[in-house]
Amino acid sequence: MTSSLAIAVDLGGTQVRAALVDIDANIVDQLTQSTAASAGGIAVLDQIVALIEKLTADLQTQSICGVGLCAPGPLDAQSGIALSTPTIEGFSDLPIGEILSEKLPWTVSIENDGIAAALGEWKHGAGQGFKNLVYITVSTGIGGGIVADGRILHGRMGMAGHIGHMTIIAGGELCPCGNRGCWEAHASGTAFTERAKRAFADSRLELSLGETSLTAKLVFDAARRSNQAALDLVNEEAELLGIGIVNLLHLYSPDVVILGGGMSNDFDLLQPEIGSYVAKCAMPPFRKIPILPTRLKSTSGLIGAASMVFAEHSA
Amino acid sequence: MTSSLAIAVDLGGTQVRAALVDIDANIVDQLTQSTAASAGGIAVLDQIVALIEKLTADLQTQSICGVGLCAPGPLDAQSGIALSTPTIEGFSDLPIGEILSEKLPWTVSIENDGIAAALGEWKHGAGQGFKNLVYITVSTGIGGGIVADGRILHGRMGMAGHIGHMTIIAGGELCPCGNRGCWEAHASGTAFTERAKRAFADSRLELSLGETSLTAKLVFDAARRSNQAALDLVNEEAELLGIGIVNLLHLYSPDVVILGGGMSNDFDLLQPEIGSYVAKCAMPPFRKIPILPTRLKSTSGLIGAASMVFAEHSA
Repeated sequence: MTSSLAIAVDLGGTQVRAALVDIDANIVDQLTQSTAASAGGIAVLDQIVALIEKLTADLQTQSICGVGLCAPGPLDAQSGIALSTPTIEGFSDLPIGEILSEKLPWTVSIENDGIAAALGEWKHGAGQGFKNLVYITVSTGIGGGIVADGRILHGRMGMAGHIGHMTIIAGGELCPCGNRGCWEAHASGTAFTERAKRAFADSRLELSLGETSLTAKLVFDAARRSNQAALDLVNEEAELLGIGIVNLLHLYSPDVVILGGGMSNDFDLLQPEIGSYVAKCAMPPFRKIPILPTRLKSTSGLIGAASMVFAEHSA
Repeated sequence: MTSSLAIAVDLGGTQVRAALVDIDANIVDQLTQSTAASAGGIAVLDQIVALIEKLTADLQTQSICGVGLCAPGPLDAQSGIALSTPTIEGFSDLPIGEILSEKLPWTVSIENDGIAAALGEWKHGAGQGFKNLVYITVSTGIGGGIVADGRILHGRMGMAGHIGHMTIIAGGELCPCGNRGCWEAHASGTAFTERAKRAFADSRLELSLGETSLTAKLVFDAARRSNQAALDLVNEEAELLGIGIVNLLHLYSPDVVILGGGMSNDFDLLQPEIGSYVAKCAMPPFRKIPILPTRLKSTSGLIGAASMVFAEHSA
């Protein structure tokens, strides 16, 4: 077999993952490390190169089609330049595509992480067969990517789909981006946990916490045990997600909305209230669009990055 | 000359316009009537047919390439069905494309009005030469259309770009769509005039009104005379427009934003405050995107509808 594998790299502010992926989107091998986020941009790129060398140590160069990397934006995907990634030090006007290409014997394709994950879900996940989809990832922040009219939506510099940074409550909560009232500032996993901390501080309700700190998972677990305060928090979160989803329905007119990221682990608890918000607040022709959980879960970015490589290779 | 002209129809809730347009986007002839909006869907379509017959009375059938119609959404542009147009009675699940095709000897192409206007500006107006643009029309309501990656963004049923109906202030003002806090409900010409009425009722300031009722134009005129209350209203409007524009920059990543509709008549007064809002609140790589006034003014929809016809004809 020649050129049968892609190297996929999913770089985040917390973790960096590198994987060997075959053409059928199977992850053949995978390595994960904590991102050296405070060591500077070059150190992070060296870390990626080292991961790839470890992953390919027993393989011949020609058995690999290329490297696909997705990273947090805003990132100029067209020229492969990290513009101002807040979560990784030194990822500011850094030509990551050029630097990696010099250090590796393969072509390196770069994509904003939300777009790569949307591509993964479209080609191999919950979005298969649709011409129009919106992929949303809700975890520490909110990101996403869009397929419209059967094509990935890139926009200028490949920066379309920064959906977490649409204002939904003007003058609202402060967002990591510096603006106020962004969807991310109100509906991310971080915002959800902050609200939970306040709610349980006020009501002093029992969450079986002991000494551990409050996490989104603990709130969802309490909601499953019918704890009313937890159920209220979950419903409030679903409505905040619903506000953004209604916006995205009107803005992109997708056939399907796919929810990924850490918050989608408890999709079954969020879905009823998201659904009823959309049914109430979207304009009539947008009300029945299915809202589905990710099928690829935490690997949608990796699978999407591999899809980029195979698409370039066959082009 | 054979097949050298397109018939363009721009149907609105107030006016219906039909025009003969040549391939260079010159409007050769044009007729305008008040829309028979309360007479029912069929009556409006009959009105369009009569306008077209009048317009083409002295022409041979074969000198016309086809008919392009744009109308307010939500409209299934792919099948030519008006779904639920709030401003025209009877435009509800009405197959306008099919009905018009039966009554006319030409092919009829249908498009949502915001998308047609975006197409017009892209091909013949302020958006020429750009691969990514967002067109915004601000008048009674707010609508728009998007060009992304060198193509018109259609989405499911051609309904992408209902940008007026993104929530920017959750729980805010009631919108004609039934939801609260939509951009349209806060930043449309209607909303601006309502705020002006309240402001001048409170402050009892002199607007040289006499017996006439307050219009957006009167407020802008007063702002030009340095009336402070009017200037405050204009700056508030610019900031509300800025909130939506920042969202659209993050969502679509355009190379340029084009502002049309009645409110763009006083673009020079709005531009400084819109510009400073965007420079402050957009993420750094989105801050320098030019925001331009429409070049085609009230004809962008007509020119876009004609462009649809010529594009189909040459395809």
